[in-house]
Amino acid sequence: MIIHLKAEVTKEKAEQLGAELESIVLQREGFFALISSSKGKSIDEKYNQFIVERFPFEDDMQLASKKYINGVREIKITDSISIGGNNKNTLMITGPCSVESEEQIEQCAALCVELGVKVLRAGAYKPRTTPYAFQGMGLAGLKLLDKMRTKHGLKIITEIRDSTHVNEIIEYADILQIGAKAMYDHGILKACGKSGKPVLLKRGFGATLQEFVQAAEFILSGGNDKVILCERGIRTFETKTRFTLDLCGVAYLKQYTNLPIILDPSHAIGFAYGVADLSKACVAMGVDGLLIETHPNPAVAKSDAAQQLNFKQFRELYAELGAVANAVGRTMI
Amino acid sequence: MIIHLKAEVTKEKAEQLGAELESIVLQREGFFALISSSKGKSIDEKYNQFIVERFPFEDDMQLASKKYINGVREIKITDSISIGGNNKNTLMITGPCSVESEEQIEQCAALCVELGVKVLRAGAYKPRTTPYAFQGMGLAGLKLLDKMRTKHGLKIITEIRDSTHVNEIIEYADILQIGAKAMYDHGILKACGKSGKPVLLKRGFGATLQEFVQAAEFILSGGNDKVILCERGIRTFETKTRFTLDLCGVAYLKQYTNLPIILDPSHAIGFAYGVADLSKACVAMGVDGLLIETHPNPAVAKSDAAQQLNFKQFRELYAELGAVANAVGRTMI
Amino acid sequence: MIIHLKAEVTKEKAEQLGAELESIVLQREGFFALISSSKGKSIDEKYNQFIVERFPFEDDMQLASKKYINGVREIKITDSISIGGNNKNTLMITGPCSVESEEQIEQCAALCVELGVKVLRAGAYKPRTTPYAFQGMGLAGLKLLDKMRTKHGLKIITEIRDSTHVNEIIEYADILQIGAKAMYDHGILKACGKSGKPVLLKRGFGATLQEFVQAAEFILSGGNDKVILCERGIRTFETKTRFTLDLCGVAYLKQYTNLPIILDPSHAIGFAYGVADLSKACVAMGVDGLLIETHPNPAVAKSDAAQQLNFKQFRELYAELGAVANAVGRTMI
Amino acid sequence: MIIHLKAEVTKEKAEQLGAELESIVLQREGFFALISSSKGKSIDEKYNQFIVERFPFEDDMQLASKKYINGVREIKITDSISIGGNNKNTLMITGPCSVESEEQIEQCAALCVELGVKVLRAGAYKPRTTPYAFQGMGLAGLKLLDKMRTKHGLKIITEIRDSTHVNEIIEYADILQIGAKAMYDHGILKACGKSGKPVLLKRGFGATLQEFVQAAEFILSGGNDKVILCERGIRTFETKTRFTLDLCGVAYLKQYTNLPIILDPSHAIGFAYGVADLSKACVAMGVDGLLIETHPNPAVAKSDAAQQLNFKQFRELYAELGAVANAVGRTMI
Repeated sequence: MIIHLKAEVTKEKAEQLGAELESIVLQREGFFALISSSKGKSIDEKYNQFIVERFPFEDDMQLASKKYINGVREIKITDSISIGGNNKNTLMITGPCSVESEEQIEQCAALCVELGVKVLRAGAYKPRTTPYAFQGMGLAGLKLLDKMRTKHGLKIITEIRDSTHVNEIIEYADILQIGAKAMYDHGILKACGKSGKPVLLKRGFGATLQEFVQAAEFILSGGNDKVILCERGIRTFETKTRFTLDLCGVAYLKQYTNLPIILDPSHAIGFAYGVADLSKACVAMGVDGLLIETHPNPAVAKSDAAQQLNFKQFRELYAELGAVANAVGRTMI
Repeated sequence: MIIHLKAEVTKEKAEQLGAELESIVLQREGFFALISSSKGKSIDEKYNQFIVERFPFEDDMQLASKKYINGVREIKITDSISIGGNNKNTLMITGPCSVESEEQIEQCAALCVELGVKVLRAGAYKPRTTPYAFQGMGLAGLKLLDKMRTKHGLKIITEIRDSTHVNEIIEYADILQIGAKAMYDHGILKACGKSGKPVLLKRGFGATLQEFVQAAEFILSGGNDKVILCERGIRTFETKTRFTLDLCGVAYLKQYTNLPIILDPSHAIGFAYGVADLSKACVAMGVDGLLIETHPNPAVAKSDAAQQLNFKQFRELYAELGAVANAVGRTMI
Repeated sequence: MIIHLKAEVTKEKAEQLGAELESIVLQREGFFALISSSKGKSIDEKYNQFIVERFPFEDDMQLASKKYINGVREIKITDSISIGGNNKNTLMITGPCSVESEEQIEQCAALCVELGVKVLRAGAYKPRTTPYAFQGMGLAGLKLLDKMRTKHGLKIITEIRDSTHVNEIIEYADILQIGAKAMYDHGILKACGKSGKPVLLKRGFGATLQEFVQAAEFILSGGNDKVILCERGIRTFETKTRFTLDLCGVAYLKQYTNLPIILDPSHAIGFAYGVADLSKACVAMGVDGLLIETHPNPAVAKSDAAQQLNFKQFRELYAELGAVANAVGRTMI
Repeated sequence: MIIHLKAEVTKEKAEQLGAELESIVLQREGFFALISSSKGKSIDEKYNQFIVERFPFEDDMQLASKKYINGVREIKITDSISIGGNNKNTLMITGPCSVESEEQIEQCAALCVELGVKVLRAGAYKPRTTPYAFQGMGLAGLKLLDKMRTKHGLKIITEIRDSTHVNEIIEYADILQIGAKAMYDHGILKACGKSGKPVLLKRGFGATLQEFVQAAEFILSGGNDKVILCERGIRTFETKTRFTLDLCGVAYLKQYTNLPIILDPSHAIGFAYGVADLSKACVAMGVDGLLIETHPNPAVAKSDAAQQLNFKQFRELYAELGAVANAVGRTMI
């Protein structure tokens, strides 16, 4: 349940009420709110004097629910880059799986500049499943991304692998990416909740939609409104493709949550051959953005070699996506 | 392995060779072909005198494989309705889950006529999971569908639930629909293989892509080239939606098979709210058709009440889909 | 809802009531029962004069539910072979995947006789996923099984693949096996419902427990009380093993249904190496039987070569299972 | 590939070789080993002078593989408590889901003492899926566990939720538990690799067996040999039970890895009714231990209320498990 307190309730009083009602206290614009589990006890009437409005929920989708905010939250990446709200933007984000070298990331940044893509993606800390493969460049990779930002005016999104380097990412990135394997990580979720920066939260490939939105609730209830959901494929019995992009789930999220949605078809299918068709499908659904992996030479990529598009493939796709976006009343930015 | 025999090899000789090589004998245009398991033994060189060409495959996707026919088979529903091949048609098929009464199916037929939709869908034998719910009108339902065909010039697609009524469906339908629960049914697959009519084969919701295509191989190797694949959602751990539409799988099928593909977003999500967005996604992928459930009054439908669109919803969607189709170079028919 | 009618209600009257209440009419011992969907309307009080007792259910697990019969139904395979009820028998069933030849099935039958195993399993109609592999010996296979029954006094269980040969199986088998791929097949379920013979119903590998029990309801409501549930592995994201044996599901079925349960670890794992350990696990759960594949020479088996035990392996396992059964208060028969 | 270097190769030289061959350097007993990805390049023959033996692997199951150590590693929890190796012990671990209060954990400790159970489990940092529920007592909970160790001579296992408190757990626990949601967490895996303490690694419920073993490789290659695998249920389409205990997977791990295995049936099924039967199944498989949740009053538990056994249920179960263990040649400790 979310409880909006009266404007005159002080922070101290709100915290006292929060303790009494086993609730999280959250500062909203001009007032405090209390949030407690949907399974929490009912509130004694003696508290009514402090309360403006109550929002009961059947489950723990609360701040993210359309029942709380009936629309899509607008998230400003910069003053001029915005998704959600009433705008009809679909944001393109592209770049390689991993930063591998200055030359490689420079080529990717140049591609962005050439096409007008505003956000560059690349991983510095890679959540590999084996210790015996390339683990990412770490801090050196972050510094290369920072250089691209300064040099080319690009915004940077990069992934937090685990809690040990979350502060580094918060320092270097414009959008904080929480990877699929880290979706349940309280350490990361709480740090992102305090960061104030836009957070792109990827759905764990074994996570239900309910759990996915609840992970977003950790960030939202931590005080950060800027949460973007990212569907990137779930694990199913089908193994001809790497994962299964859950567009039924995206329809559900659009219907029931107030958060913008960005899709990652590259990780979902895991093979370059299907990325173009899936990207068109995603854009036709009217989502708020796409995350597409590109690499100057995918065959020699140190991670995710099979799924990255080469630059020629990406240029062709990007040209086609604008028409699809327009057909559903949206604009690729 | 598929072996093309020389044109002068007679049917008797082909059958003798088939027996010796543990192969299925299939009549092609102007010659016979032998098909044996990919795991079959290698062919003795004494057979070379009868052989024109060999197509070895690593698995049992053979007649359906792009390695055998590098393109998409054209399937003519009528002289004027065709999908696949070099045309860029996306065929709309709509109608209720079940035939419930003459009045109800007449209303649905009238909607098709109004909008120019050429193929009417409705089930007469329903594969319900419980014996205690409506099981379909059976033969009486087929006769009502026949009446709609005669009266309105519509083509009819309806589902075969089990082998006991397969001949009735072959008699009454223009396109034979094999339902998801019947995908592995040898009795149905073999009867469809001999029927000569177009077959829409739905993927079992627990079936791999490999098994799905192999089910198509039963029909193709039975002598019927007119097989359409239909993805309608697979069963995953996510239960907020009824099934998970596998568009990664569709990308795979487009890449590796030569069969046209029709998508069924209604059954995939199981709720009307997401059908429009998913339909646009499907069309943007460049598939050959859509199967959408509509009902004059979904709330009182005897089956699948939650997922059927009402006529107003369908009219709006149908108008929007044309623009998406055009954006990817296709035409809704 | 199940409604027990008064003993004086005639068949004609019961059928009239069934029609009025949209219910299935089922003859019980000494009276008639009506069964309608759990979602059916409430019954007008004017019917109270005919009714002895009502059993409302929240879902369509009805005749199979422990809320209807609070215990496990006893199923007699013969006068001397019985499972369920108050006996604590765990029935061993073994034999090859497929009947391949008289010599092969004779060897398997001899193994049963040697060890005192009473029921021989083998398939004559094989539900293969590809048309290009061995499809089973068909009727000739059934006749060989019949010969083993006559010669060795064994009981026979064999699988119904599709509705086209269901009557043959009913004629030749002592226990009718409905395979995993046929679990939803109305044609088979209805024929088995009328057959009067014990039916072993395998869970579809993509079927929920709810659907599994509902498939049993088709047979039970068709008039046949002798239904045995068989868990044989479900399809999950894990592919190192062929399927995933769902023993949590077995615990659920034991808790909520009144049907005996037989487990098939061979098909679940798909590899001989794990069959012994899994069989012990199954027996320790206190189930009513096991179905284990054995073959005189698994390496040359025409189907399921990887998972069949050779005779030496089976002899060792069978000796060990008795001790496990005893440890949980049961007896291997 | 694992490469055993000659005993005379110094640490400095080993590290130089490691850098040249893109390998992890691992100190073994009396020599150094290099481990590189199975996909790594072949080794130039000039290195042969330093090499004693090579162990090539097709995938990245290396140190954990039976191809490397053909047996089960023995792991000593204390001098007198040991699992794996040639002993046939099955270790019981029990306790509540969460430490909730001193009184509650004292009662649980007393139960252990009463029955001779040597290891107490309880969580202090709970990986809840929602921010609005009890998150665990944190450090205060660890201190209560420490008190139980001192007072009752019990060994303590407790869970690491994320990297932020990994050092606390290493300080307070005798066995470090990596929870299912943290299985991929590099920060935790690396810290455990350096800790020297026994680690119980739970399989992520969406993780393949391959990924599970690879997570163990992070710890093993970090220098810690004491890794125990724990299967606790995977997520499947079946939702009547909370998860699906993957005993086929356990059979696979026993066949292909050299690590001891402990099973957690409580979390798998998620309901107390099935825990006894599943526990017997696990013990009958011959595994190295069980993790069972018990609570003095499950109905009021702050987490996992549905699945915890009460003390009466646990006492009965514990008495029965000994007989099952004996039937398969093992001893409950």
